[in-house]
Amino acid sequence: MQEAALELYAEQGFAETSVAEVAERAGLTERTFFRYFPDKREVLFDGEGHFRELLVGAVSEVPASATPMEAIKAGFDALAAELQPIRDRARKRSRIIAAYPELQERELVKLASWSAAFEDALRGRGLTESAAKVAGEVAVAVFHAAFQLWTDDGRKKDLAELVSEALVDLRALVESTPA
Amino acid sequence: MQEAALELYAEQGFAETSVAEVAERAGLTERTFFRYFPDKREVLFDGEGHFRELLVGAVSEVPASATPMEAIKAGFDALAAELQPIRDRARKRSRIIAAYPELQERELVKLASWSAAFEDALRGRGLTESAAKVAGEVAVAVFHAAFQLWTDDGRKKDLAELVSEALVDLRALVESTPA
Repeated sequence: MQEAALELYAEQGFAETSVAEVAERAGLTERTFFRYFPDKREVLFDGEGHFRELLVGAVSEVPASATPMEAIKAGFDALAAELQPIRDRARKRSRIIAAYPELQERELVKLASWSAAFEDALRGRGLTESAAKVAGEVAVAVFHAAFQLWTDDGRKKDLAELVSEALVDLRALVESTPA
Repeated sequence: MQEAALELYAEQGFAETSVAEVAERAGLTERTFFRYFPDKREVLFDGEGHFRELLVGAVSEVPASATPMEAIKAGFDALAAELQPIRDRARKRSRIIAAYPELQERELVKLASWSAAFEDALRGRGLTESAAKVAGEVAVAVFHAAFQLWTDDGRKKDLAELVSEALVDLRALVESTPA
């Protein structure tokens, strides 16, 4: 269903596309569409819960002896492995989202829920409330920066590579803190 | 006008309050309200542009010899100095926003515009595109973590102090990166 929606939103615009058209393109009925999605916006965020569970699972499964950043990296690796094979779809999706403020808002809400998921998982690993909050926000900040570069059309690098580079940028930034 | 809106939204709920009521509480007409705000949501985000200009100004005015983190800290200091005296209003506002998803969305959009502002100002200081993007996202992540702790009711610490502590948490996180 998402594939059909992405095609139509890209071809004729999100605002100009009806649920009926999306369902038809997918070879399904409107009724079936509404069984899975409350509206034509949500179809773009299909799989959101899956990605959040994936990152929480990865962060939580890292051995207790690992550092917070090792746990976060395990979350990044799990996300990147899942996203890399669907890069073209992710790029198409990002272009559509960039064109509509109401879709951008929804994307930001999704990212905020990822921050909260990282935060909870890290608190579960023994971080203090404040350290877990900072780590959750910063983890998503780093991932989002890499993700935005990855969905830029001209780029050839893998998401995992861009995430690694973003972590290098983060380290350089922190090391520029005045003594 | 924001004061009147905060009072009413806190007393009787955001959804239950009309523009007419807000205007009346402020001793103004509905027409005057609509001269300044498109709807009753936007009145909660009054001053947003001002804060963004403040941080861009602070980041840009730091001497060219300063490090990226010094420039970001100047932005944080400017924001904290402006927000600290209105802590009670900020707390009341945060409680209202937390209760309504559509207000949270708007708050996240505002924060994303702050990331972009940090990013642009840092690119203007010579950072690469990727480093500026990471720094812009991470700066807002750190500030947002501190801001959330600051608007928590039980807390007594100043925003500036919480921002400093969040930067210490950030450093500890980055230093936990495996070699």
